[in-house]
Amino acid sequence: MQFEITKEYIENIQQLIIDKHDNTLLKSLEDVHYADVAELIEELSTEDSLYIIKLLDSDFTSDVIAELDEDDREKILKGLSSKEIAEEIDELDTDDAADIINELPEEQKEEVISQLEDVEHAKEIVELLRYDEDTAGGLMAKELVKVNENWNVLTCVKEMRAQAEEVTRVHSIYVVDDSDVLKGRLSLKDLLTTSTRSPITDVFIKNVDSVNVHDKTDEVARIMQKYDLEAIPVVDELGRLVGRITIDDIVDVIKEEAEKDYQMAAGLVDDVEADDSIIELTKARLPWLVLGLFGGLGSVFIMEGFDAALGNYKELFFFTPLIAAMAGNVGVQSSAIIVQGLANDIIKGSLFKRLIKEVSISLISGVVLGLLIIIFGLVTSMDFKFSFTVAISMLCVIIIASLIGTFVPIILDKRGIDPAIATGPFITTSNDIFGIFLFFYIAKSILGF
Amino acid sequence: MQFEITKEYIENIQQLIIDKHDNTLLKSLEDVHYADVAELIEELSTEDSLYIIKLLDSDFTSDVIAELDEDDREKILKGLSSKEIAEEIDELDTDDAADIINELPEEQKEEVISQLEDVEHAKEIVELLRYDEDTAGGLMAKELVKVNENWNVLTCVKEMRAQAEEVTRVHSIYVVDDSDVLKGRLSLKDLLTTSTRSPITDVFIKNVDSVNVHDKTDEVARIMQKYDLEAIPVVDELGRLVGRITIDDIVDVIKEEAEKDYQMAAGLVDDVEADDSIIELTKARLPWLVLGLFGGLGSVFIMEGFDAALGNYKELFFFTPLIAAMAGNVGVQSSAIIVQGLANDIIKGSLFKRLIKEVSISLISGVVLGLLIIIFGLVTSMDFKFSFTVAISMLCVIIIASLIGTFVPIILDKRGIDPAIATGPFITTSNDIFGIFLFFYIAKSILGF
Repeated sequence: MQFEITKEYIENIQQLIIDKHDNTLLKSLEDVHYADVAELIEELSTEDSLYIIKLLDSDFTSDVIAELDEDDREKILKGLSSKEIAEEIDELDTDDAADIINELPEEQKEEVISQLEDVEHAKEIVELLRYDEDTAGGLMAKELVKVNENWNVLTCVKEMRAQAEEVTRVHSIYVVDDSDVLKGRLSLKDLLTTSTRSPITDVFIKNVDSVNVHDKTDEVARIMQKYDLEAIPVVDELGRLVGRITIDDIVDVIKEEAEKDYQMAAGLVDDVEADDSIIELTKARLPWLVLGLFGGLGSVFIMEGFDAALGNYKELFFFTPLIAAMAGNVGVQSSAIIVQGLANDIIKGSLFKRLIKEVSISLISGVVLGLLIIIFGLVTSMDFKFSFTVAISMLCVIIIASLIGTFVPIILDKRGIDPAIATGPFITTSNDIFGIFLFFYIAKSILGF
Repeated sequence: MQFEITKEYIENIQQLIIDKHDNTLLKSLEDVHYADVAELIEELSTEDSLYIIKLLDSDFTSDVIAELDEDDREKILKGLSSKEIAEEIDELDTDDAADIINELPEEQKEEVISQLEDVEHAKEIVELLRYDEDTAGGLMAKELVKVNENWNVLTCVKEMRAQAEEVTRVHSIYVVDDSDVLKGRLSLKDLLTTSTRSPITDVFIKNVDSVNVHDKTDEVARIMQKYDLEAIPVVDELGRLVGRITIDDIVDVIKEEAEKDYQMAAGLVDDVEADDSIIELTKARLPWLVLGLFGGLGSVFIMEGFDAALGNYKELFFFTPLIAAMAGNVGVQSSAIIVQGLANDIIKGSLFKRLIKEVSISLISGVVLGLLIIIFGLVTSMDFKFSFTVAISMLCVIIIASLIGTFVPIILDKRGIDPAIATGPFITTSNDIFGIFLFFYIAKSILGF
């Protein structure tokens, strides 16, 4: 059932473009889904892509353009005139249209908007441009089906048919009063299973979830997931129905959110992708590396402070990378669990219980790992007092590292800062320094140097 | 619009349970969404939860139970008899029903199934139990609306009304032939906008995406996201329609996939949550820590091998945590970008181009960081030759670490192994060892000790 873009298919298309065999080209692309054409375009040169975009109908290419990666879309739009862009946007739903206009250079935005043919559509797009990208208003579309609570069912069905022509997918039919205030919804299922003679007030569901136009997108995602909604109406401050958000847009929000956390944990500052430019990738990577460098230079100072140990206990220095790695790994594990727990809203109970739990986990892990070190010491005939010291210090480092990993994200979250920034290099670097200091300090207390 | 579970609300409910004020309790819980009751139950003791579950109707509590966390559900189900569990399952859609039965202890499964009242429903659940959890069959529900291609529209509408009663949400109406082979679909929108007199063969869309019952869930997720589908029909080997998958189940797959990658990157072996038990959490964390320990012991050997440097260049040992941290951070960054690129299918172009790109990025980063080290050396009046050596060695370590981080996931992916296991502790540990060895080796070549 799935269409696959093979190398042969791409080469065939490229040859058809060179030969300008427009009819054969049109034939090869007919019946191909717009998402597949978008994938094809990502493989072609900008010139070839523009050739195809200009050849095909704008009611099809508009969907292709909306489907493209932001970077690829930018290249295509640069090759189109404002008039041509306006033609594409005329065909799109308001939410996709507003997203694309938002990506245009400032000076081109007005020009494109002024060339839109459908004035009603243009007005709705301009309204959407007012909202922040990360709010319900920035995510919603104006396309929806609504009926007035005072209508009878026959009027509703007639009106709905007319409205449904404009809407790609009908999820719910919203019921509003004369001032457009959201009153409830009609489910399509009820519509299928109810006699057409029933009065509308008898049929519609009065209790309907909605979000405010200024609600954050991650909150909208949480609500839609929790209540298993496929679409949610968006209301303004006065409760008036101004748009609706569908689950496919929320899927993108959820994915982006998850990817952002993953990238932060991996020490990437910006949202980068493997096919971004070298400069973009470096800009996303270098900041955390510089932080790591400063952390590393900090531990140079700490170790210089303990260089008296070089006399009798030079092996302590051989163990520092191990200690630093343990502190880092334990810290990242603890913080990842907390960050995910915070995101899924399952960090419950008192902080004291959480403390007891973390200490217990690190005690068990620390004792197991400490025993392994002592066994290693026996096998390599190390001085017992020395390997015991390393084991004990490591146990302390693990406990402290796990507490830092646990409580730094909790504290950040309480202060309204995204706890995900605490994962990855931030925790590893601070745990490195702290772990190395603690290791030498405890070793010095036991061994005395 | 949203309901919030406050501490007062919980205490009030707990008091009502103690006082056995069933009527007031029923009143407090009426109009509360099942997802909110599920959240409430996660806050209550098992006894109190069971009191509420037994008090409320099973057509409501079945949804509550399906909504619970797996751990919480297990506790509740342990407190219910097989007969009571069967009553709950009778109310659920086949996909949720099969999931819950799958979680029961082996010996209880048959008992619960034999007590189901609706025989047709029970048969469908048993059919679903045959499929692997991570396949389309394991995800799909049997509830769907289908019509025969030979029917006329009037028969269809009548049949659909009857079928829709059984289905929570009607997404698409599937069209099948006499042998149940999937032929196409009727969109609800077309239904709203078409005259009831049209023959069905004229109305239905012949081209319909579908997945095979044995397709993996992540492949289903990819297809549904790419084509922006809200439901997809599932067919067996003979093309017969056997079920459908809806987008809300796919949202869970996407989230779990993203969380799994994140947890692997953070060095967690199992899918754990903050509120899991100490034993479960330790089991998920310890394996990577042990690996890290062995890695650390490996670097102890390496440093012992270079202990001649302790004479004139003891500072080299102070720099090892810095070098290890850099190797780890760079490796994790590179692998995270590749793992995400592989997941989103955007790793294109030749491996040689990828190599050039990674080397360029690490050269830029390495030179910047190297200069910072040389400046640090000047400020702390370090020997120039020494700080230059550290900078050059670090540059080499960064290049090699980024290549390991890039190519290990690519190679794993080519061999059909989940590349995500290469992120996190695996890359950090191997890069630690390799980085430290390279650092000392290059330092020895330049400084000669």
